[in-house]
Amino acid sequence: MTGRYEAMWERLNLDLDAHASLLEVLGKFYGDIYMSQQGRLRGMEYLDFVLSEIHGLRIQELQEARANGRKVIGTFCVFVPEEIVWAADAIQVGLCAGAEAGTEAAEKILPRNTCALIKSFVGFKLARLCPFIESCDMVVGETTCDGKKKAYEIFSDYAPVYVMEIPQMKCAADRALWKAEVLRFKQAVEDLTGRSITAERLREAVVLINQRRRALQRLNRLRAAHPVPISGRDVLLINQVSFYDDPKRFTQKIEELCDELEDKVRRGEGVADGAVRLMLSGCPMAIPNWKLPYIIESSGAVVVGEESCIGSRNTRDLVDESASNLDELLDAIVDRYMKIDCACFTPNAERLEHIVDMARELNVKGVIHYGLSFCQPYAMESFKVEKALQEAGFPMVAIETDYSMEDVEQLKTRVEAFVEMVR
Amino acid sequence: MTGRYEAMWERLNLDLDAHASLLEVLGKFYGDIYMSQQGRLRGMEYLDFVLSEIHGLRIQELQEARANGRKVIGTFCVFVPEEIVWAADAIQVGLCAGAEAGTEAAEKILPRNTCALIKSFVGFKLARLCPFIESCDMVVGETTCDGKKKAYEIFSDYAPVYVMEIPQMKCAADRALWKAEVLRFKQAVEDLTGRSITAERLREAVVLINQRRRALQRLNRLRAAHPVPISGRDVLLINQVSFYDDPKRFTQKIEELCDELEDKVRRGEGVADGAVRLMLSGCPMAIPNWKLPYIIESSGAVVVGEESCIGSRNTRDLVDESASNLDELLDAIVDRYMKIDCACFTPNAERLEHIVDMARELNVKGVIHYGLSFCQPYAMESFKVEKALQEAGFPMVAIETDYSMEDVEQLKTRVEAFVEMVR
Repeated sequence: MTGRYEAMWERLNLDLDAHASLLEVLGKFYGDIYMSQQGRLRGMEYLDFVLSEIHGLRIQELQEARANGRKVIGTFCVFVPEEIVWAADAIQVGLCAGAEAGTEAAEKILPRNTCALIKSFVGFKLARLCPFIESCDMVVGETTCDGKKKAYEIFSDYAPVYVMEIPQMKCAADRALWKAEVLRFKQAVEDLTGRSITAERLREAVVLINQRRRALQRLNRLRAAHPVPISGRDVLLINQVSFYDDPKRFTQKIEELCDELEDKVRRGEGVADGAVRLMLSGCPMAIPNWKLPYIIESSGAVVVGEESCIGSRNTRDLVDESASNLDELLDAIVDRYMKIDCACFTPNAERLEHIVDMARELNVKGVIHYGLSFCQPYAMESFKVEKALQEAGFPMVAIETDYSMEDVEQLKTRVEAFVEMVR
Repeated sequence: MTGRYEAMWERLNLDLDAHASLLEVLGKFYGDIYMSQQGRLRGMEYLDFVLSEIHGLRIQELQEARANGRKVIGTFCVFVPEEIVWAADAIQVGLCAGAEAGTEAAEKILPRNTCALIKSFVGFKLARLCPFIESCDMVVGETTCDGKKKAYEIFSDYAPVYVMEIPQMKCAADRALWKAEVLRFKQAVEDLTGRSITAERLREAVVLINQRRRALQRLNRLRAAHPVPISGRDVLLINQVSFYDDPKRFTQKIEELCDELEDKVRRGEGVADGAVRLMLSGCPMAIPNWKLPYIIESSGAVVVGEESCIGSRNTRDLVDESASNLDELLDAIVDRYMKIDCACFTPNAERLEHIVDMARELNVKGVIHYGLSFCQPYAMESFKVEKALQEAGFPMVAIETDYSMEDVEQLKTRVEAFVEMVR
């Protein structure tokens, strides 16, 4: 795709040579991990296409939208209320944060023992490798963890950062704080776009994003089938792409894919015959962070659920659509986002319940808890997760890693041992 | 002191042998670092005495108070509004968190890459070495960092933990959240003590704690003198003891010590002739964490200021005493604590201003930024601190360490190089 988009990338001030190398590595990696799968669903072709064009056609779409006066808002977190962005006719996209890029530059302005995700988004920007952030009119950060909270202060020297405060408990005062933050964000988006958010537009946006969530919920329910009809890798990719793609188009494609999956389930067909059903829980996995799922699915297991922000946390709860005016719609949005069971909350007992419920519904043999090195909230919460799962009869292993490939063999050994244990 | 208090420690369920070893090591460490100083102030004898009796007489006082129906509330953070505790005739004390103790046990329930302070307070409890926590009717945690926030969830299986939520910004909704938290804490303290907090009692408590802050402010102002009349180690000890001692007695002793210091300044006498004036900034140093100050003051420098929670952050701001009723007093407390410039806030520009102001007022040659390994908020903020200090003409070096003695020689080399550079 290099030739077709080079002029655009140059206008976006990307480092063309380094970017070409990145795409080459990404393509090879994708080929090894994704295209090597046997008997894949026809519907995955769309995902393959989107991924192959993620720095191409999708960026071109963003540029065209911008040329027509629309704004692009980049995010890193499921707390940013998307409905508000779409209601102002702006476009919300995720940002590059799933690969080692510009690490050396990032470590000049961040401590070395910062989690890979944070070093990655800073590195992508400093190394001029992310066409999404270069297309952004606003980048929304949040206070979900110390690392991101403090990194955004530094990052705001390099990008147009706006920070939302996320409360840390779920009392009345927290809900009030979050509502104030949602209103402040609405104002900021209105100021940026020059469009005022009406009840009608907001309701449309609520339905738009709910529909995407419903499609992904449907997809996840189908994974309860035996044998499981789709690989964990493929569903992870779908979840990842949901942060970048146009929501309407994406939803339609996923519904089609679910139709195909239903047929497959009806026929009793599945992937990975005899593989051990496992669930992933923990930190988010941004594109192209497919390392651990690939290791798991190369070790006699199949991932049937992802309890993470790039997984069930982003799709479980819908916004109540019955609201009759702007205020009620905003309240419905506030309430929906307050249900998020991020490890930033204390206590966070809901998450433990959700994990155990998921493990039961998906009928898994065990859970792999995935932590990014130096991610304190998830690392610490994994002790409680393990206890809750143990009490419910599900074995768990905690894996901590980053984006490097140095520990692949070591991880393989640990995962294989776990799979053997729970088989 | 072992013989005199053994029965009490046994009643508190301490591990007597391990505790005896701890006191022995602590005594030797104190001798090396403190008693070795030449020409110390007479007033420091009181501090030496308090420290020598910190697990003895002070604990006995707490036990006697409890026998008389008073409650003891333990804390780890300068955000806990002490005035409310004292107004309910309860006693607030700091908890053990400054030495390696029970690390092995702590690492069974916490990730290894947790900061030394957190591992220490958990370890002290699990190894049954802290008579303060064993004397507590309530332990107050807070959400200042991911590590503590999540550790308290685990710690609450072992101690009567109550958690306060600290906001992360300083907008109107944050102040409202903090006020709600202060009121919730007031209720919890009233419930625990069975005493209701009246305007009169609260005003007395405000004055009591303000007086202690004023005494410490006076002490810190005297350190602007050339030559500096007191070592940094001694002032650190004073700050540390302020968290454990009876506030009234402590304030009186510090005022006496300041009288002595004023005489010394008038006579032009100082400590550490020709030593390079440095300031410490960053993470708190709990007893007996004297490693870095000792290294600095053994390297041709003298510490003339501590920008930390065990330092200026806890003494800089007073509560407005002019309030005329309970509501106004509570508002004054809320406002005073909202001024704290902890790295948990984003952005936290006030801290940068305070550090530069301090460096100027104390006429330092440079600043040593102290970070506990894995303390993300202070590690990340140190990049901004260094920039602000550089712009103001003050060199800074960032030192990251924990409570082990393994890196002493390495730290010495780095500190000596910095002292030579700024001399």
